[in-house]
Amino acid sequence: MRKLPKKITVIGVGLIGGSICLGLKKRLGKKVIISGLSHTLAKSQKVKTIGIIDKVINHISNIPVDSDIIVIATPIKRIISTLKELAKLPISKSLIIDVGSTKNIICKEAVKSLPDNFHFIGTHPMAGGEIPGAENSDPNLFINKPWIICSTKLSKNTDIDMLYRLIKLFGAKPVRLTSSKHDQIVTWSSHLPLILANILISTVSGQKKWKDIARVASTGFKDSTRLASHDPKMKKDIIISNETNLLPALDLLKQELEIFKTRVKTSENSIMQYLIKTKNTRDLWLSERL
Amino acid sequence: MRKLPKKITVIGVGLIGGSICLGLKKRLGKKVIISGLSHTLAKSQKVKTIGIIDKVINHISNIPVDSDIIVIATPIKRIISTLKELAKLPISKSLIIDVGSTKNIICKEAVKSLPDNFHFIGTHPMAGGEIPGAENSDPNLFINKPWIICSTKLSKNTDIDMLYRLIKLFGAKPVRLTSSKHDQIVTWSSHLPLILANILISTVSGQKKWKDIARVASTGFKDSTRLASHDPKMKKDIIISNETNLLPALDLLKQELEIFKTRVKTSENSIMQYLIKTKNTRDLWLSERL
Repeated sequence: MRKLPKKITVIGVGLIGGSICLGLKKRLGKKVIISGLSHTLAKSQKVKTIGIIDKVINHISNIPVDSDIIVIATPIKRIISTLKELAKLPISKSLIIDVGSTKNIICKEAVKSLPDNFHFIGTHPMAGGEIPGAENSDPNLFINKPWIICSTKLSKNTDIDMLYRLIKLFGAKPVRLTSSKHDQIVTWSSHLPLILANILISTVSGQKKWKDIARVASTGFKDSTRLASHDPKMKKDIIISNETNLLPALDLLKQELEIFKTRVKTSENSIMQYLIKTKNTRDLWLSERL
Repeated sequence: MRKLPKKITVIGVGLIGGSICLGLKKRLGKKVIISGLSHTLAKSQKVKTIGIIDKVINHISNIPVDSDIIVIATPIKRIISTLKELAKLPISKSLIIDVGSTKNIICKEAVKSLPDNFHFIGTHPMAGGEIPGAENSDPNLFINKPWIICSTKLSKNTDIDMLYRLIKLFGAKPVRLTSSKHDQIVTWSSHLPLILANILISTVSGQKKWKDIARVASTGFKDSTRLASHDPKMKKDIIISNETNLLPALDLLKQELEIFKTRVKTSENSIMQYLIKTKNTRDLWLSERL
């Protein structure tokens, strides 16, 4: 049985990485020592100053080789390059996990790059916030949120078992999926809404009357476009690494727009049925989620 | 100069009507007497019991003829029929306003149905909530929200002036528009997001994997689909009464989906530019709104 981690290394201390640090500190107390590596040394020192990490790492080659767990919490592209660099280090006892928003590319890269005696699990906590950055970290960010686990041939049962306990400690709900199924599913639950917000903003702000529209736009517009304010770099990596699922999803959305238009042209009753059915679907989803 | 109202009649005491009642009571205190007419007598009595209105009206023909202001806060279709019924009553001194989400049809109907010596202004407070019903009323619902005013030939300057003061008393921001321009503008700021939420739910829940998707869908999905839970009847009336603006808007959204797909196929840089531009547009809108 793998014990809960005491020595932790987090690579990429942003909102998610920082919330993992604070969550571990809150739940495991003084037992844990967290080493952190950010994009720049100045950023690493800042997150140490505000108490998110305990030790600053100045280069990936200097991460503690006795880390119980190494969490990669960077944008997807950097996860890929980080895996290649970790492969060179004597860290075959550490459990490596990532928290990237797509899993297929990452899990494939891990299996390809890491030596056979390494330990790796791909994960994806379904949590986030409008405002990125470690300074907005929240130890309770993951409470009641699904946290997806994608095992690979580098994932031992003892690794998976420990990760389940760790995820539950955060108050999150572990969900096990293959990396392919993960990418298919989050296309609909996460990536499509994420991108639709930008597409809606682009459509609306492209209107000649945008200045007037902006003046009267209110809470509804704010909520439906919230995801458009997410980090573009993070989002761009998601789009590129999940293009094969995303492009067909956009086509289905286009088809659905046509279906709705046909109902508008058909009858009041047809519109009403559509609105009632979709409202009921959402309300049921929401009630089962609570 | 028209004085702020003391005797108020509200027809349709739901979330918006109820919030107007509570807002007036909070800001004008004991001076106001509010009579209310709901869909059923039982509902009218309930809203009296919970302190939203002071007097129950059992039929539209019995509304106090000395009402200073009559607020119609029903779904759009009922606003139209209510105007026809009000036309028969001796209420030429009262100012009649409605709070419906489209204005062209309503203002035209008011001018057509009401006698020339009546007073009418079409209005639209840009506020709402996920959960309808008078019991969710909030006296502060309109604070900092735009409240659109569409004058008609039945709107005297003194009426408009009083309404401006009343709207400001609620903490809301009066915005004057023609009814046609209102309908064009809210198509983008409000109706398109409102309907897109249902279309998104229908697309996603139509997938074979919906059960799995529902299990991992989280905060992002919840926010992007919030508007799908709005009252279908209210929404159906909006769609029907603003079809001429809405259908072309859906077509432009479809075009935008194609534009985005082309960018995905073009280059990482092209995606990145799109995401940055739309993020900046939303962030700027949000900062100017506060």
